[in-house]
Amino acid sequence: MKAAVARGGAPVLVEKPDPAPGAEAVVRVLLAGICGTDLEIARGYLDHRGVLGHEFVGVVETAPDPAWAGARVVGEINVPCGVCPTCASGLPRHCPTRTVLGIAGRDGAFAERLALPLANLHHVPAGVGDEAAVFTEPLAAAHEILDQVEIDPGSRVLVVGDGRLGQLCARVLDRAGARPVVWGKHPEKVALLERLGYRTLVGDAPPGGRFDVVVEASGSPGGLERALAAVRPRGTIVLKSTYHGRAPLSLTAIVVDEVTVVGSRCGSFAPALAHLAAEPALTADLVSERYPLSEIASAFARASDSDALKVLLAP
Amino acid sequence: MKAAVARGGAPVLVEKPDPAPGAEAVVRVLLAGICGTDLEIARGYLDHRGVLGHEFVGVVETAPDPAWAGARVVGEINVPCGVCPTCASGLPRHCPTRTVLGIAGRDGAFAERLALPLANLHHVPAGVGDEAAVFTEPLAAAHEILDQVEIDPGSRVLVVGDGRLGQLCARVLDRAGARPVVWGKHPEKVALLERLGYRTLVGDAPPGGRFDVVVEASGSPGGLERALAAVRPRGTIVLKSTYHGRAPLSLTAIVVDEVTVVGSRCGSFAPALAHLAAEPALTADLVSERYPLSEIASAFARASDSDALKVLLAP
Repeated sequence: MKAAVARGGAPVLVEKPDPAPGAEAVVRVLLAGICGTDLEIARGYLDHRGVLGHEFVGVVETAPDPAWAGARVVGEINVPCGVCPTCASGLPRHCPTRTVLGIAGRDGAFAERLALPLANLHHVPAGVGDEAAVFTEPLAAAHEILDQVEIDPGSRVLVVGDGRLGQLCARVLDRAGARPVVWGKHPEKVALLERLGYRTLVGDAPPGGRFDVVVEASGSPGGLERALAAVRPRGTIVLKSTYHGRAPLSLTAIVVDEVTVVGSRCGSFAPALAHLAAEPALTADLVSERYPLSEIASAFARASDSDALKVLLAP
Repeated sequence: MKAAVARGGAPVLVEKPDPAPGAEAVVRVLLAGICGTDLEIARGYLDHRGVLGHEFVGVVETAPDPAWAGARVVGEINVPCGVCPTCASGLPRHCPTRTVLGIAGRDGAFAERLALPLANLHHVPAGVGDEAAVFTEPLAAAHEILDQVEIDPGSRVLVVGDGRLGQLCARVLDRAGARPVVWGKHPEKVALLERLGYRTLVGDAPPGGRFDVVVEASGSPGGLERALAAVRPRGTIVLKSTYHGRAPLSLTAIVVDEVTVVGSRCGSFAPALAHLAAEPALTADLVSERYPLSEIASAFARASDSDALKVLLAP
């Protein structure tokens, strides 16, 4: 089968054997999405050398339980050992020996087929199309915020970043009743949010208001300092951005203003699928382009454009 | 009166008028303590150009309420406006227009006399000596941890840093029933902790264990990365260290391990004074030296030594 792997720069298409039927389900990929993490991995972040990609929707071809054959599915990306103290403590997504689809020790979704344990798979509700279902993984990551931080409708909430993840975070916070302000810098992305009725801020100056909760989803190292300028004393910053290497930062404001910074990564798929089932068009305006897998290099170049939102790959 | 001010490097002694009796109490300083923040301010941090010093014990000379005259007191260092939304929300220590004794907009304690509102003063219990009472402010900052983070006796707790603040944090956590491990690097300071029965770690390697709570009190920018290496997934880091300027940091582990970082600064004096009243010898082994105020430059030089703990000044 064709698959895209990182080779110290842009991803390249290679021929690989299909995953063998066995203890894990084999899923034929219908659509996959390119995420900021994929772009970082292609630049050398995390040293992943296998097949890229962790956002997908697909159809089960073979499975240990034949009842799954033919099911349209999405898949949680962390595969824990299931027996270590971390797994036993109820944190399997943090298992120290986990593999992660397309990120660590496990071939990913930018391929014709992938393999995952049945425990990772979720049926896609009938009313949710492929182009919506492919957003399940990043939407779950946005829903994780609500699992970690108490946000009530009266909270003053700011999202830093108007990109792929910032857009999803805004929509999730809105569903929780805390209509956020979004601080962006890309005119088209800010305009999209304004069409949906969000209040937006543009430019480098910190907003005058003092926010109770700030979600840092800009993907850039400077985002945390922008978040610190906007949060109130004793407020909360949800940190979503990861980046490669070190960046010069001043964290003194965390201490002086006694801010709480909550790191937030992956989330459970169930709330995200319920959200998509309730709002099947939730992500329709976030698809920038669709490429065949064979044009992986062009797809990555497009996903790196500052005006791009989600770029999809169809094997 | 004599007073020590920062002049772009080592502090220098100058003649200043005594504070005038008026709306605030005038306190004759008996003893003052040098803190890491004072050393940073002398190097240019925060641009404070007035009298240095914020840790003190003294005797009230004049006060708007004459009942206070002659009282032996310590004083909370933040002077809030009392009327802004932040003050009204119950966070006067975070008032955006506050002055801070010896730190921001208000002359400090490295002087023969200082002025503070009566609302900031606390009587020192009779059984607590001057050399103990002078620790009230940093001890309150250590107690602040217990106000912010739930720590139960079963928690695995690590303190990063064996210096002035790390030593106090360890003693406070111990009193809360969570006997901490201390990760240090100065042989004499580590030995002092071991004599008190603490388990210690030395060297650059992260400890093998995975701690539920890590208190970062090393005072160095690299302390946060050491704390991140030691904390368990979904664990908590209490960040106490401030430093001047920016430092190169990787915060990816905060996101990947979904760590919560809680900034922690000043605390209420009442729990600290109760702690000293219960254990009057709590801080006796933390005094490295006592200098007359006239030898302020030597005192600062001594406080900067890597083996120094608390250096006291007697006006």
